[in-house]
Amino acid sequence: MIKAGIIGATGYAGNELVRLLLQHRDVQIVWYGSKSYIDRKYASVYENMFQIVDETCLDDNMDALADEADVIFTATPQGLCASLVTEEILNRAKVIDLSADFRIQDVSVYEKWYGIRHASPQWIGEAVYGLSEINREAIRHARLLANPGCYPTCSILSVYPLVKEGWIDPNTLIIDAKSGTSGAGRGAKVNNLYCEVNENIKAYGVASHRHTPEIEEQLSYAAKKNVTISFTPHLVPMNRGILVTAYASLTKDVTEEDIRAVYEQYYGKETFVRLLESGVCPQTRWVEGSNYVDVNVKVDPRTRRVILMGAMDNLVKGAAGQAIQNMNLMFGRKEQEGLMQIPMFP
Amino acid sequence: MIKAGIIGATGYAGNELVRLLLQHRDVQIVWYGSKSYIDRKYASVYENMFQIVDETCLDDNMDALADEADVIFTATPQGLCASLVTEEILNRAKVIDLSADFRIQDVSVYEKWYGIRHASPQWIGEAVYGLSEINREAIRHARLLANPGCYPTCSILSVYPLVKEGWIDPNTLIIDAKSGTSGAGRGAKVNNLYCEVNENIKAYGVASHRHTPEIEEQLSYAAKKNVTISFTPHLVPMNRGILVTAYASLTKDVTEEDIRAVYEQYYGKETFVRLLESGVCPQTRWVEGSNYVDVNVKVDPRTRRVILMGAMDNLVKGAAGQAIQNMNLMFGRKEQEGLMQIPMFP
Amino acid sequence: MIKAGIIGATGYAGNELVRLLLQHRDVQIVWYGSKSYIDRKYASVYENMFQIVDETCLDDNMDALADEADVIFTATPQGLCASLVTEEILNRAKVIDLSADFRIQDVSVYEKWYGIRHASPQWIGEAVYGLSEINREAIRHARLLANPGCYPTCSILSVYPLVKEGWIDPNTLIIDAKSGTSGAGRGAKVNNLYCEVNENIKAYGVASHRHTPEIEEQLSYAAKKNVTISFTPHLVPMNRGILVTAYASLTKDVTEEDIRAVYEQYYGKETFVRLLESGVCPQTRWVEGSNYVDVNVKVDPRTRRVILMGAMDNLVKGAAGQAIQNMNLMFGRKEQEGLMQIPMFP
Amino acid sequence: MIKAGIIGATGYAGNELVRLLLQHRDVQIVWYGSKSYIDRKYASVYENMFQIVDETCLDDNMDALADEADVIFTATPQGLCASLVTEEILNRAKVIDLSADFRIQDVSVYEKWYGIRHASPQWIGEAVYGLSEINREAIRHARLLANPGCYPTCSILSVYPLVKEGWIDPNTLIIDAKSGTSGAGRGAKVNNLYCEVNENIKAYGVASHRHTPEIEEQLSYAAKKNVTISFTPHLVPMNRGILVTAYASLTKDVTEEDIRAVYEQYYGKETFVRLLESGVCPQTRWVEGSNYVDVNVKVDPRTRRVILMGAMDNLVKGAAGQAIQNMNLMFGRKEQEGLMQIPMFP
Repeated sequence: MIKAGIIGATGYAGNELVRLLLQHRDVQIVWYGSKSYIDRKYASVYENMFQIVDETCLDDNMDALADEADVIFTATPQGLCASLVTEEILNRAKVIDLSADFRIQDVSVYEKWYGIRHASPQWIGEAVYGLSEINREAIRHARLLANPGCYPTCSILSVYPLVKEGWIDPNTLIIDAKSGTSGAGRGAKVNNLYCEVNENIKAYGVASHRHTPEIEEQLSYAAKKNVTISFTPHLVPMNRGILVTAYASLTKDVTEEDIRAVYEQYYGKETFVRLLESGVCPQTRWVEGSNYVDVNVKVDPRTRRVILMGAMDNLVKGAAGQAIQNMNLMFGRKEQEGLMQIPMFP
Repeated sequence: MIKAGIIGATGYAGNELVRLLLQHRDVQIVWYGSKSYIDRKYASVYENMFQIVDETCLDDNMDALADEADVIFTATPQGLCASLVTEEILNRAKVIDLSADFRIQDVSVYEKWYGIRHASPQWIGEAVYGLSEINREAIRHARLLANPGCYPTCSILSVYPLVKEGWIDPNTLIIDAKSGTSGAGRGAKVNNLYCEVNENIKAYGVASHRHTPEIEEQLSYAAKKNVTISFTPHLVPMNRGILVTAYASLTKDVTEEDIRAVYEQYYGKETFVRLLESGVCPQTRWVEGSNYVDVNVKVDPRTRRVILMGAMDNLVKGAAGQAIQNMNLMFGRKEQEGLMQIPMFP
Repeated sequence: MIKAGIIGATGYAGNELVRLLLQHRDVQIVWYGSKSYIDRKYASVYENMFQIVDETCLDDNMDALADEADVIFTATPQGLCASLVTEEILNRAKVIDLSADFRIQDVSVYEKWYGIRHASPQWIGEAVYGLSEINREAIRHARLLANPGCYPTCSILSVYPLVKEGWIDPNTLIIDAKSGTSGAGRGAKVNNLYCEVNENIKAYGVASHRHTPEIEEQLSYAAKKNVTISFTPHLVPMNRGILVTAYASLTKDVTEEDIRAVYEQYYGKETFVRLLESGVCPQTRWVEGSNYVDVNVKVDPRTRRVILMGAMDNLVKGAAGQAIQNMNLMFGRKEQEGLMQIPMFP
Repeated sequence: MIKAGIIGATGYAGNELVRLLLQHRDVQIVWYGSKSYIDRKYASVYENMFQIVDETCLDDNMDALADEADVIFTATPQGLCASLVTEEILNRAKVIDLSADFRIQDVSVYEKWYGIRHASPQWIGEAVYGLSEINREAIRHARLLANPGCYPTCSILSVYPLVKEGWIDPNTLIIDAKSGTSGAGRGAKVNNLYCEVNENIKAYGVASHRHTPEIEEQLSYAAKKNVTISFTPHLVPMNRGILVTAYASLTKDVTEEDIRAVYEQYYGKETFVRLLESGVCPQTRWVEGSNYVDVNVKVDPRTRRVILMGAMDNLVKGAAGQAIQNMNLMFGRKEQEGLMQIPMFP
């Protein structure tokens, strides 16, 4: 039985971790951390957990938590995990950080895009980037895991095979992404009120969103050269889901069938990446509540571009589900354990 | 292993049956019946099932199905199940009917409210009304089970204890119910288009909705006298969920604590009925995707009325989940088997 | 030209006042008051007004405002208007208060339900309750107008004729109301975040909502006796709209036609109350963006109750539109001036 | 007084034409054409028009209609207008076609993308493409006007100045567009049901959407060479609104200020195109119900691309509003007449 502690258990990603971990047969949650709700019943903050979770929220004491837990999930704003993690903690518990603190290897890039000083750059080198389908072996041996961002997960998995194979020019990549509103978190902000989000769509963070360097770094590894992309996120009036529509110029004369064969080769044995049938566009509704990423491709012979598409649930594969997938790998469990929820529709 | 067949597998309730049965460790689905999609891949109708369900849709042949299945679910419009069921079928397989055909004991009441002729009234007497929390023992021995309607399930469970105890005058009951749009089914009708439902709320079937006599019959058994109620359903712009707000005059001078004690007595040992803490109103978001019904009560001393409230997921406890709960009882399984999904939020 | 000032111009009702007043041919807005946004461009708070409103937000100085304006609208939380209004101000400008401060004649009732001390009870007697269809003559001569609450407007207009005629027993009245989320205001609260409201319906303020005594007082005048009702509001995932479903016992043996004839008599000449054709239920989508209230009735012979229904836009007839309707009356203008917007669908 | 007839008055665009024309002081609607609802009261199909429109739906007889009307709007599926228009009709009435029949000059391109045979190619040459801001002078003299598609209107206006000036390479243009669901029309299709659209986002018509050649043709005129673009539409769970996010490579070293100056030069005097302040992204909520298109630009120095953005209401500027703007020009009226509705929020 893996003992798990959560710091930031009352955010949306934290609550999703609770939902999924409770359904994992080999995990026990031992710590519901939430600075804002200390001493309050967890189930009074999230009534879905009424009569399911009896525990009370605790504080952010990662040191005490490391004594009780085998794994610590930090589902907190940037900066917190970096400020708490120590050698002593990592000797006692594995840490899976859902924030961006350890995703980017170049600390100056992190500090520039996030606008904060990194509190423990010495750990960046050890941290493993937890995109399970791509970094599986390294993840198995990680003590400190950087769980990928929601947009990067969907973006990278949607385009990775063609970048890796060199079939597209990665510097022509334009990633136009759309996210449900749970990605904006549970903070009380006017911009996230129902009446502000409903009946609206907008781009935000244009040419400046923090997930850009994360995507670029991972694609640079795949391309074996520096990659610079355009990335634009949009806010969509729905609770869950990310859709990626990516455009890139082909470097060689290939057909849709050729490209699908490559995707099949990369993802054919993956449980959680589903290459849809030819001509079927990914839609967020078909993955809601599950750890699946649905991908597909479309060649446009008129422009010699390929359109690469992906859909997933931002709270599952884009956050809590992938964190558990990584936990399974780190603890030698079956990767799919606790993650075989069937997408719920409608 | 229980072999299950579904007639009407491509409606919303049918798809929810598939989702839940696939997660039931002791069930195998052997028949995906769908007259509209015969020979088409089930997963091409419901892409959430891609790479999960490989089967193709079959027709409505209940006789052939009875050879292959231990249990047949009919998730079809009124009239179909009644037209198909025979002694020969019931000898081979148990039938759980999600339509209204066998819910109402008085065939003239059925024919008046539903406006169709009942094709096999001879089976009505044998059919058991499958509100698990109330009819548990009879359900265990049923061959033909009438799965309750969505509104009746939420309405009856919300008010049952006080009707049964005689603490309210059942003829003062006014049930104002609100449902998500999946309850309207997947038929292509202008009234159910996105732009017609979104940004709108309306009452429908005022003083004439077919679930009225079903609620009245069950409450009459509880009250041991004829009960006539007001029932008004409303359509709400959301996918899932039913909320019941019921009003009734108290027959005696009792406090909220007294009433909660009665509810505790009726539901304290029930897994799927959660009596919320005092002052907490049921909300559909806290039960989405699960088999729970959340209930609570509020006494209004100014009017000497009590307000009884309930919330549930219309596709789970209001349809597929309750059908599986009944199946578990009918086959001697643990009632909760396959039904412990934690509500998904947001 | 009527010079109008708005205190609270950056709330949802304030912005709706701006939208409607700008389309009124006989009004000029001279003061955009907003304590939270002083010195900020109004159009940067509400970008719909970009290139339409060039003004900057000012503070709440009602005294200075009274020098510049003929009419002052206060679209602010309870308590503010009562704390600001003085004889000197009322001598210079008419005041239309969209808060509850002057709606309730009995100050102890106000203080009990609102939980605050009334700062200027001496003005309550002079204030006129601005339900235009019912109080038209008194409104024409008012200096201080109490604009009705959103729920009371829809509730009272839906039931008024039968209460006035004595055809229903008003103490059997149960008003089950449903509102869009703009009614909750633009404050940054977790409960009003998109993900909390979307895919959810809930009751709130059960047996304790502040609009209850306002409805009761007005119905008591109509009934010429004290009326006590049940009133339950619900929050619906949509931006705009209120739907009222009201239930009452008939005191005499009347048909739907009889009742419709009474409604025709009361509302036949009213521009903004539309008695729908027999059998057509009011829906919020058909009144969105307009000052209309759609009403209809349904007799249930089984229960000898009548169901009275109404739908309106909470920000127009329920707030800003009705305030302008009252302004027109107070300034001797045509009542419909600036208010003939056609409902926008979808 | 301009007498207007509408063929296809019961679609969403038709109903929006009715809403707007009724508020135009110089127009009288003389014909509500709707093949599906002949002899039915218009207001029973669209209850928002109750007590506002008393007329009954008529058939598609364009010849009879030309005797009664000065202008005929066809808000019908592709093919119908082309099959009805004749010299005799055009001699008596001006025709504004909201379908695609006369938008594309090359009939073979039309027939290839739309998959139907054009019934009257002889009129294509005379038809004027009605993007008012760009074709104003030609529109004034048109008899037969091709009202632009919704996506083309928003797309072209968002990118036009830079294509015209040659500051971007038009063949690098990637237009990622997002639309509310009213754009899909009022036909009863499973894909447009509430539960299918809600909580979902999808791309559709990838590399094959019919609006692609329309955009390309107009941009080719601006660029004075053949332009081939990538265009991908997406369906968003909201009623109204189109958002365009377009990406292109800059051909010269310019700043955001330089580009904004060009946009200012093109649109500074336009009533309906609003260049937002620097850094403010267009959002559909700020234009709902109005004829405005909000545009803005963002230079990304990292990629030497510019991101061009636009937002508008698909039923107003994208259909009915622009049709009326064109009508005003064709009849010598003030272009803004009847179109100064302020965007409604929320």
